[in-house]
Amino acid sequence: MISVTILGAGNVGTHLFKAFKKSNQVSVKQWFNRNLDAISTYSNEVDIMDDLTSLVEADIYIITVSDEAVAKISSELPFENRLVVHTAGSVNIHDLDKKNKRGVFYPLQSISKNAVLDFAKVPIGIETIDKKDYHILKELALAIGSPVKKINGDQRKVLHLAAVFVNNFTNQMYRIAHEITESQAAEFDLLKPLILETANKVQDMSPYMAQTGPAKRGNLKTIKKHLALLEKEQHKDIYKLITKSIQDTHGTSTPLSNRK
Amino acid sequence: MISVTILGAGNVGTHLFKAFKKSNQVSVKQWFNRNLDAISTYSNEVDIMDDLTSLVEADIYIITVSDEAVAKISSELPFENRLVVHTAGSVNIHDLDKKNKRGVFYPLQSISKNAVLDFAKVPIGIETIDKKDYHILKELALAIGSPVKKINGDQRKVLHLAAVFVNNFTNQMYRIAHEITESQAAEFDLLKPLILETANKVQDMSPYMAQTGPAKRGNLKTIKKHLALLEKEQHKDIYKLITKSIQDTHGTSTPLSNRK
Repeated sequence: MISVTILGAGNVGTHLFKAFKKSNQVSVKQWFNRNLDAISTYSNEVDIMDDLTSLVEADIYIITVSDEAVAKISSELPFENRLVVHTAGSVNIHDLDKKNKRGVFYPLQSISKNAVLDFAKVPIGIETIDKKDYHILKELALAIGSPVKKINGDQRKVLHLAAVFVNNFTNQMYRIAHEITESQAAEFDLLKPLILETANKVQDMSPYMAQTGPAKRGNLKTIKKHLALLEKEQHKDIYKLITKSIQDTHGTSTPLSNRK
Repeated sequence: MISVTILGAGNVGTHLFKAFKKSNQVSVKQWFNRNLDAISTYSNEVDIMDDLTSLVEADIYIITVSDEAVAKISSELPFENRLVVHTAGSVNIHDLDKKNKRGVFYPLQSISKNAVLDFAKVPIGIETIDKKDYHILKELALAIGSPVKKINGDQRKVLHLAAVFVNNFTNQMYRIAHEITESQAAEFDLLKPLILETANKVQDMSPYMAQTGPAKRGNLKTIKKHLALLEKEQHKDIYKLITKSIQDTHGTSTPLSNRK
């Protein structure tokens, strides 16, 4: 049995709490949050608190507060030589106060507060300063059914950046598609199977191999039709820039890319 | 029983042929292609030919040749007053020769030659000049299990454009993520569950509501870290432009967006 204490009650903290509660290999000792109201509904299930000095001993302390607050809360912990980890993609492991053993337990997913989260689909990237601490963190991830990968800080930072491309930026592509279909009274819903297929395709094939379309084919006639259809200047700029990026990737440059 | 003749043997023609053969409500009369070799393996299953003058009567002639060749082949058909449709997203219905009844049978999916295609996940957009021709095209789509939607030419053109955003441009976001993870010896594979989750999320939620991340939150510190991590100028430009687009969508403009 691994005992853990969670600090913070944002999306990551809340989903981890629920996953730990479900596992019979993990016991949640305490749940700390500056604002007790946010976790008061869980007071029957766990010892909740807003006072760091009352923290009891646990195998792992998991800091899930916002990126900016990680360093400060780690320095305020009233104990030493225990294992303290954070869960942030872009925070350095050395931002944790060195009075404790340090690690990172990074769930690589988009985590919304109210959505149901299946941790089998959440790879956990683990980093530790001391090799000896890796094993218990790996056990903790496996206890909630997550795939585990040892990653160093540089890898984690680049994964966090890459996640912005495949998640936030991809979602903005969906958003723009939503805007332009609605402007012509066309149904965004018709694109949903294509959205899924596009994501499915790269599960077994590289994005390079999966690419199709006018930019890859260098079909200037279609590209021009599309640019003429777009009403917003910003959408035109995005169309041109990503078309150029696809052409550069696939060596299918057309006169369009020389004009800019 | 609906009888069809297919003209062209690209991805769309080949997948439609296979889907029609599986349906017991459709009979494929003939399959035309300029280059017989491309369809010779199907000669036991269907009457194949490379000579337009030998076309026999069918309920529907489906032109699946490249966009540029649609008008020409439709004008070369040696008959009149039969129903002729094309399958192209960005070709006008009036590009079909008016000696025949005209329609569009537009499969809204990314169709690769060798992938297995489930037409239940391929919405078919139907347009006809004469209302009377709509019904048989709808029946044909339903016969292969596809959802059907009546769409006019303007709607089809904007859907084709929007498909470039959710398919080609999204896939290029995956490609850039692949490039930047590999540059740091991180595993692109770790992003695959996130890619699927991002696509799944907008099946029940608008892309506007689904958005998360540093651009939406206006987290300038993380945005700056990300820009510093990107090595290619083009990747920086894409990061800045889409970040600006997200900020404009969500009203979370930061100083970054004013500098450019």
